[in-house]
Amino acid sequence: MKTDSFLTLARRFRAIFFDSYGVLKVAGGKVEGGPELIETLRNEGIEIRVLTNDSSRSQSNQATRFRELGYQSIRSSDIITSGMMAKLFLKEKITSGKVAYLGTEASARYVLDAGCEAVAVSEVTNPDEISGMVFLDDEGFDWNTDLNAVINLIRNRNIPTIVANTDYLYPTAGGKVALATGGIARLVESVLGRKFLHFGKPDTQMFNYAFEDINLTDSFAKRDVLMVGDTLGTDIIGGNKFGIQTCLVLSGNTSAKNYNQDIVRTGIGPDFVVESIGT
Amino acid sequence: MKTDSFLTLARRFRAIFFDSYGVLKVAGGKVEGGPELIETLRNEGIEIRVLTNDSSRSQSNQATRFRELGYQSIRSSDIITSGMMAKLFLKEKITSGKVAYLGTEASARYVLDAGCEAVAVSEVTNPDEISGMVFLDDEGFDWNTDLNAVINLIRNRNIPTIVANTDYLYPTAGGKVALATGGIARLVESVLGRKFLHFGKPDTQMFNYAFEDINLTDSFAKRDVLMVGDTLGTDIIGGNKFGIQTCLVLSGNTSAKNYNQDIVRTGIGPDFVVESIGT
Amino acid sequence: MKTDSFLTLARRFRAIFFDSYGVLKVAGGKVEGGPELIETLRNEGIEIRVLTNDSSRSQSNQATRFRELGYQSIRSSDIITSGMMAKLFLKEKITSGKVAYLGTEASARYVLDAGCEAVAVSEVTNPDEISGMVFLDDEGFDWNTDLNAVINLIRNRNIPTIVANTDYLYPTAGGKVALATGGIARLVESVLGRKFLHFGKPDTQMFNYAFEDINLTDSFAKRDVLMVGDTLGTDIIGGNKFGIQTCLVLSGNTSAKNYNQDIVRTGIGPDFVVESIGT
Amino acid sequence: MKTDSFLTLARRFRAIFFDSYGVLKVAGGKVEGGPELIETLRNEGIEIRVLTNDSSRSQSNQATRFRELGYQSIRSSDIITSGMMAKLFLKEKITSGKVAYLGTEASARYVLDAGCEAVAVSEVTNPDEISGMVFLDDEGFDWNTDLNAVINLIRNRNIPTIVANTDYLYPTAGGKVALATGGIARLVESVLGRKFLHFGKPDTQMFNYAFEDINLTDSFAKRDVLMVGDTLGTDIIGGNKFGIQTCLVLSGNTSAKNYNQDIVRTGIGPDFVVESIGT
Repeated sequence: MKTDSFLTLARRFRAIFFDSYGVLKVAGGKVEGGPELIETLRNEGIEIRVLTNDSSRSQSNQATRFRELGYQSIRSSDIITSGMMAKLFLKEKITSGKVAYLGTEASARYVLDAGCEAVAVSEVTNPDEISGMVFLDDEGFDWNTDLNAVINLIRNRNIPTIVANTDYLYPTAGGKVALATGGIARLVESVLGRKFLHFGKPDTQMFNYAFEDINLTDSFAKRDVLMVGDTLGTDIIGGNKFGIQTCLVLSGNTSAKNYNQDIVRTGIGPDFVVESIGT
Repeated sequence: MKTDSFLTLARRFRAIFFDSYGVLKVAGGKVEGGPELIETLRNEGIEIRVLTNDSSRSQSNQATRFRELGYQSIRSSDIITSGMMAKLFLKEKITSGKVAYLGTEASARYVLDAGCEAVAVSEVTNPDEISGMVFLDDEGFDWNTDLNAVINLIRNRNIPTIVANTDYLYPTAGGKVALATGGIARLVESVLGRKFLHFGKPDTQMFNYAFEDINLTDSFAKRDVLMVGDTLGTDIIGGNKFGIQTCLVLSGNTSAKNYNQDIVRTGIGPDFVVESIGT
Repeated sequence: MKTDSFLTLARRFRAIFFDSYGVLKVAGGKVEGGPELIETLRNEGIEIRVLTNDSSRSQSNQATRFRELGYQSIRSSDIITSGMMAKLFLKEKITSGKVAYLGTEASARYVLDAGCEAVAVSEVTNPDEISGMVFLDDEGFDWNTDLNAVINLIRNRNIPTIVANTDYLYPTAGGKVALATGGIARLVESVLGRKFLHFGKPDTQMFNYAFEDINLTDSFAKRDVLMVGDTLGTDIIGGNKFGIQTCLVLSGNTSAKNYNQDIVRTGIGPDFVVESIGT
Repeated sequence: MKTDSFLTLARRFRAIFFDSYGVLKVAGGKVEGGPELIETLRNEGIEIRVLTNDSSRSQSNQATRFRELGYQSIRSSDIITSGMMAKLFLKEKITSGKVAYLGTEASARYVLDAGCEAVAVSEVTNPDEISGMVFLDDEGFDWNTDLNAVINLIRNRNIPTIVANTDYLYPTAGGKVALATGGIARLVESVLGRKFLHFGKPDTQMFNYAFEDINLTDSFAKRDVLMVGDTLGTDIIGGNKFGIQTCLVLSGNTSAKNYNQDIVRTGIGPDFVVESIGT
């Protein structure tokens, strides 16, 4: 299952979906050899999409950051975010009222783009005007007061509550981690005994969106696509469930030392394993 | 939110997705007025699909049963089962080896139709030959010996384990319930500390399949579609997440007496509520 | 099961264990008629203990607050806190090193009383010196930075992590609620996939401590004792499991409107129900 | 932390609590050197108790089996079972009506000894006569029909439901496992969304019972006692929480190969580790 060269593997496919953190980027910057790999695939006509559980920034914002790291050919439209999935939901289901959010003002862009009025949860004055609640980012609010504001806003009312990023933790500098939006939402679900609407991997919705995006002319089959990720519980299980081939990289959340045990313990098996996409 | 006439509501949409048990059928047989309602919608050109978490029987088998109950115009191809979602997965991801299953021989049809060799878990002689495990039905096996066989088959090996019906319980005669396939799978997940691949509502995959099926000519928008179901945690949350309108019926799992509290407690709110589709 | 007069019920017992918030106190102050009830019971020779999942303040601190509300006869030694259970653990099991804590400096008293050196989690400079981690209070720290500090402190090391208050939420003014220590600890358990050591109700340890405290001369049987609480999932299930009689009051977490459904839904049944201890 | 000789370690304590399966016994029979070790400790005046999550057989029945394996000095009264904890509960809390049970007729002994009338769940004719439900053993009933009988018995009624053995799995011959009573109860809890009353390790109640049993003359402190077990999630976390020293043996559920990772992953750390008590 362990494969030496990612490039050799990649050439067996017509389209490749990449996770962002831990695959294309790491805490220090780009993954070594990453930009060259993407360039090579592009030149050979292989389709590229980035599937990221990041609802804190817009597509163009993320594309700019990729360019700064040396990924010249990753365009805005190649990046599919969990925030976009949440936006599609809001657009269809919230037709009146305001949407309260937890996150930065930048992250509220997804609410505005859905055609809804956005209000930070700390600024809600009349709860009855609120038609939906969205967890967008782990920054931009006071955790203590604003988490309690969220709990009191939703606990006695029936409004859809959306989690636009399902990740529990994200890596920071020095081998440390920090609580991500999904972890914060999980806290609120636990204490209220509810289940919110989660968007992002491992849900197949995002894979389906990406697949339809490359397959406008109906020329792709699922077996033409490879999902590449560093996390068994999101990238790999999601890709497996969608029915595409999956490749685990060891440059992020899953370590070279423990990956075999992690696979047996969780029962989530990738089709391939490589050190990193730069190999 | 409570609406008197389902027919009046239904006429506002161009396509309607129905759950099966508790919506079209009840323990005693058909829902009163159900066949006439379906006939009327069909005659008015409204698209109909049945979305059922039933992986124990094939589409044609279920269509026959519908005809016996008086639903003359529900064809095999109108019925979308969670077993079909599992079949699509097996087809893409299991390319060699045999697939072990828990269920009746009839339910194993979904494995065979995926092009795989099926073997009842009680008949597995060489575990190394098994490339996947599927929970298909709550009948057709000895619970005590065969559940232990499943646990021992998968606990030390890395093979995909699929749950083709996510329901925990199903209604039986006299207001009673019985353990469904999803409940049995949940037991095995609990004791092994794993998460299997679940197919069926509330997952959006099945809604997406149904939507693509009616939308071959790209003339439908999500707002043209209504999901009708009796269960908040599968039909309603799934429809909501997929971005279509949802209608709760009180003829099945959710009672007229408790539905308001259930909605507040779970935070899962339908767009509409009716007594039954026969109203 | 519903009883009119708490006093009449109480006189059938020789000792009564009371929860604090929602039973003796409410958001506005004392429960109406509470101080008089306690005085009457005391005068009739009935033993009184307060069992509280509050690890933020010491026994004497809590006794002072009770006196301010009019409860003249509740002494320091009548109050049994979940913090005391955590203290007993630390005393037996942490024999060297420092104990990191999340909470106010006042709450750290429980660590110091166990004979351990206490250090706020934000002030930990050398993780290797830390032999234990305790969640004590929901105040006294910066949620964002300090929760991440806790996660990074314990995720790769094997030190006991203690939750000194298992409650998820506590009531605040105006019918609102706020996240309690147990809810915060639950967040960290969720994202790390661990189970910490929880002290406090519903665990029987605290009931056992209170029972031994009244029973120094071996003259009490469990049937002589009544537990009075407002929360099914802590007070009532804990008292039931310990084998004493239980009485639900409707002056706190459980409402007069929903208590019957809550009992059927959770399967947690008190032996008695009264409006409040003042009835 | 890893220690060579269990005997040397044991001599530092005045009382030792042993788990049964995986510690004193293994699938093939006794643990090598086990009977000699127990004999030596007894001769040196060290108190011995066996704490077992086995509610399928009585104390005397289990003592007989120990003697057959060569443990001559383990008496009936040295064996403390989770079934006894359940019995104490029934005795205090079920004062009228019958108790339904899942298990063998032999396991129903615990119900009868509590002074209650016992009726197999398959033989319940009038649900209104039933005042409690107990999960006692994984044998003695038809899984399919009787699990459904349990679900229908308790789902709409408020009667205490007791789990007398919390283990999910137990080892059988050839390195295999089988579903234990706690796993079966967990299934019913999952599908009904309830939490039952669990007796047995890791709950501290059983440790407390054993401690009081050796400490009739008040001469023991917790630091005089060592708990020895093969399972982190029951024996070790339970002993830790009760405040006594804990020793993990590698002769049962936890393997020599993975124990270090299991400790870091779960955060449950024993004070000592040995290969087996025979070392």
